[in-house]
Amino acid sequence: MSRPPGRKQDSHKISRELFVLTYGALVAQLCKDYEKDEDVNSCLDRMGYGIGVRLIDDFLARSAMKKCRSYSETADTIAQVAFKMYLGVTPSVTCSSPAGNEFSLILDKNPLVDFVEELPAERASLCYCNLLCGVIRGALEMVHLAAEVTFLQDRLRGDAVTEIGITFLRKAEDRKHKRN
Amino acid sequence: MSRPPGRKQDSHKISRELFVLTYGALVAQLCKDYEKDEDVNSCLDRMGYGIGVRLIDDFLARSAMKKCRSYSETADTIAQVAFKMYLGVTPSVTCSSPAGNEFSLILDKNPLVDFVEELPAERASLCYCNLLCGVIRGALEMVHLAAEVTFLQDRLRGDAVTEIGITFLRKAEDRKHKRN
Repeated sequence: MSRPPGRKQDSHKISRELFVLTYGALVAQLCKDYEKDEDVNSCLDRMGYGIGVRLIDDFLARSAMKKCRSYSETADTIAQVAFKMYLGVTPSVTCSSPAGNEFSLILDKNPLVDFVEELPAERASLCYCNLLCGVIRGALEMVHLAAEVTFLQDRLRGDAVTEIGITFLRKAEDRKHKRN
Repeated sequence: MSRPPGRKQDSHKISRELFVLTYGALVAQLCKDYEKDEDVNSCLDRMGYGIGVRLIDDFLARSAMKKCRSYSETADTIAQVAFKMYLGVTPSVTCSSPAGNEFSLILDKNPLVDFVEELPAERASLCYCNLLCGVIRGALEMVHLAAEVTFLQDRLRGDAVTEIGITFLRKAEDRKHKRN
């Protein structure tokens, strides 16, 4: 009764366009609900967090990933395995701190904004794709990695690329341990 | 510079889980916004309509469909081409009226409810997937087919299957023409 893995994966695939337009409807609804961009951004982040918390099990099951041994390996896994699996794109990864706990995922092309031309002038502070930050944060928390995840650059806001920053928060115990 | 069609299609594919969870977040938000199930249902239908109006171009381009010659062919195309393309499932189609303008799409498995166990008791009239009805209605309208699209049965509400009813509305001129 075993199925080839390729076919099983195919049954999990859907077309991106419906997702992108549905996501657009979600953001539009939140813009109706909240006047301030900051509130829309927080709400998207919070929703994303809830999604990440649930999505991690699916990710671990389907990717058959083992535990990452470093922040660097974790960042690479998010970019090369998770983004590829869920959004069909692979951001490039750079490490942006000497301490080795800050990373950037750089997207030349953001699949979530396919149908978005530009943000309206009155929504200049909107982080349109902030759901993604929440998803990453929620998923990381479920594997016991606390992190801050934010958009550092966004092509929708006129930047050259879209850049998601991930800062892994070292635990107090880790620091203490290192000092001893 | 030509790419094999298979590969081009692959770049449009994403994993279903992220979509399903994002859709869940959208419905949850609307349930916060509106007290009455009927208002949530209308809002989902309206959003879906806006999505269908935009999705039809993508559908026609990617499916390379020619004009359908009958309501029956249209219903089959929605089930076998559009549902397959966008949701990865193929509902069965039945024609439920002697006049030949009422069809049912029957889904044994509804991919949008993967993570939904059951509706909360206070949301017994919610058409959780009503966005789909709006999408179909909007897309049909763009190819000059007026239709009513509603959920007739829903496994989430305890029915044996999920059934979407499509009633093509004959234009006044058609009827007049037939009488003459």
